[in-house]
Amino acid sequence: MDVIKAKRSSLVEQVALQIEALIESKTWPVGTRIPPEMELMEQFGVSRNTLREAIRAHVHTGLLQTKQGSGTYVRAKIGLGVSFQKRLETSTLLETLEVRHAIEREAAWLAAERHTEEEAVHIQACLMACKEAANLHSFAEADIALHHAIIAASHNRILIDLYASLADSLHASVYDLTGMNLHTEADPGAHEALVQAIMERHPEKAASIVSEDIDCLKRMANSEENR
Amino acid sequence: MDVIKAKRSSLVEQVALQIEALIESKTWPVGTRIPPEMELMEQFGVSRNTLREAIRAHVHTGLLQTKQGSGTYVRAKIGLGVSFQKRLETSTLLETLEVRHAIEREAAWLAAERHTEEEAVHIQACLMACKEAANLHSFAEADIALHHAIIAASHNRILIDLYASLADSLHASVYDLTGMNLHTEADPGAHEALVQAIMERHPEKAASIVSEDIDCLKRMANSEENR
Repeated sequence: MDVIKAKRSSLVEQVALQIEALIESKTWPVGTRIPPEMELMEQFGVSRNTLREAIRAHVHTGLLQTKQGSGTYVRAKIGLGVSFQKRLETSTLLETLEVRHAIEREAAWLAAERHTEEEAVHIQACLMACKEAANLHSFAEADIALHHAIIAASHNRILIDLYASLADSLHASVYDLTGMNLHTEADPGAHEALVQAIMERHPEKAASIVSEDIDCLKRMANSEENR
Repeated sequence: MDVIKAKRSSLVEQVALQIEALIESKTWPVGTRIPPEMELMEQFGVSRNTLREAIRAHVHTGLLQTKQGSGTYVRAKIGLGVSFQKRLETSTLLETLEVRHAIEREAAWLAAERHTEEEAVHIQACLMACKEAANLHSFAEADIALHHAIIAASHNRILIDLYASLADSLHASVYDLTGMNLHTEADPGAHEALVQAIMERHPEKAASIVSEDIDCLKRMANSEENR
């Protein structure tokens, strides 16, 4: 009995890891529905219970999302724990801005030191898209893409994964804020200055621009609270 | 059939959340074995399958750990996703030092601004324990306690949870390094200077001491690699 239990448990782990690999390799891209249960049972060579347990585990880690009556979808490439998601949902705007500052400052510093030519081109294209955005929605998209491009140029895979997992929560609250107050960003020139500092390979300058920009958002958050 | 499935799935979620609450409230403290299956089935009023699925989900989020033949133990208060744990295991020492820098610098800054009298006393007690440590093992314990005390004084619950989840991985590799090179820390005076800057409520100074200390560890990591 104990042997069967251990075997099943390690089978679930194996299937869970295979699912993770399919998501990481983009065979199952974010936003798509995963194949039907019968197909997966055959593909992994496991029972329905084992498959369901593995899927359930990833609903909990945040990689998959089950929509009632419609199937299971890939939610994110890297998932944080349930408790972490809950923590983010109940945190204040100031707390999320401080976490953004910690990660974005470090990443801007490293990106200034490490970015490749290819990454430089991509970062500049994202900046251009921010400038040309016709409305808040398309600005928000371009803005998030720019942030991810800079984080990617840090070449630190933990920061990249961490930022990817946190980004939704970290940005959502800020758009609530800027949407109320401004058409675009806290400081419209901050993006341009940041990209320039990174291109010039000037880490101290890049880091201090991030600090100033986030300080500006903190002040906006404060005055919003005291209104 | 679909109704039954959805009901069961939300039951698993509920039990998973109850387990989380028991761990967060320290009713189930970290390191202890959770009660036997039969007892929990009765407590939560669920079937064995539902209970096992909820436990399995938390093995994946990292909150629980199943030891074969010995039961299920509380592993951590807050768990990161599986993919995240894997990312940490495969990351380089330099990557972990950069992430430590991002979190510890921000936390030192905030701790200098926000620490209470009670937290000041606790931080100083941890510093004293570091100084009085008789061997590397007890130094490592006191050192980690000091870091957690400073992070706690930041009053940012996301940083606190993040650090708690990452701490094992972030510190393990450093002790491999310092264990090889030194009896104690990269710079034995750094702790004292950091605590003093925090006590003086000097955020810039506290942040820059963290930066110098981690730079020192990076140089050690580098020379270790090039030996």
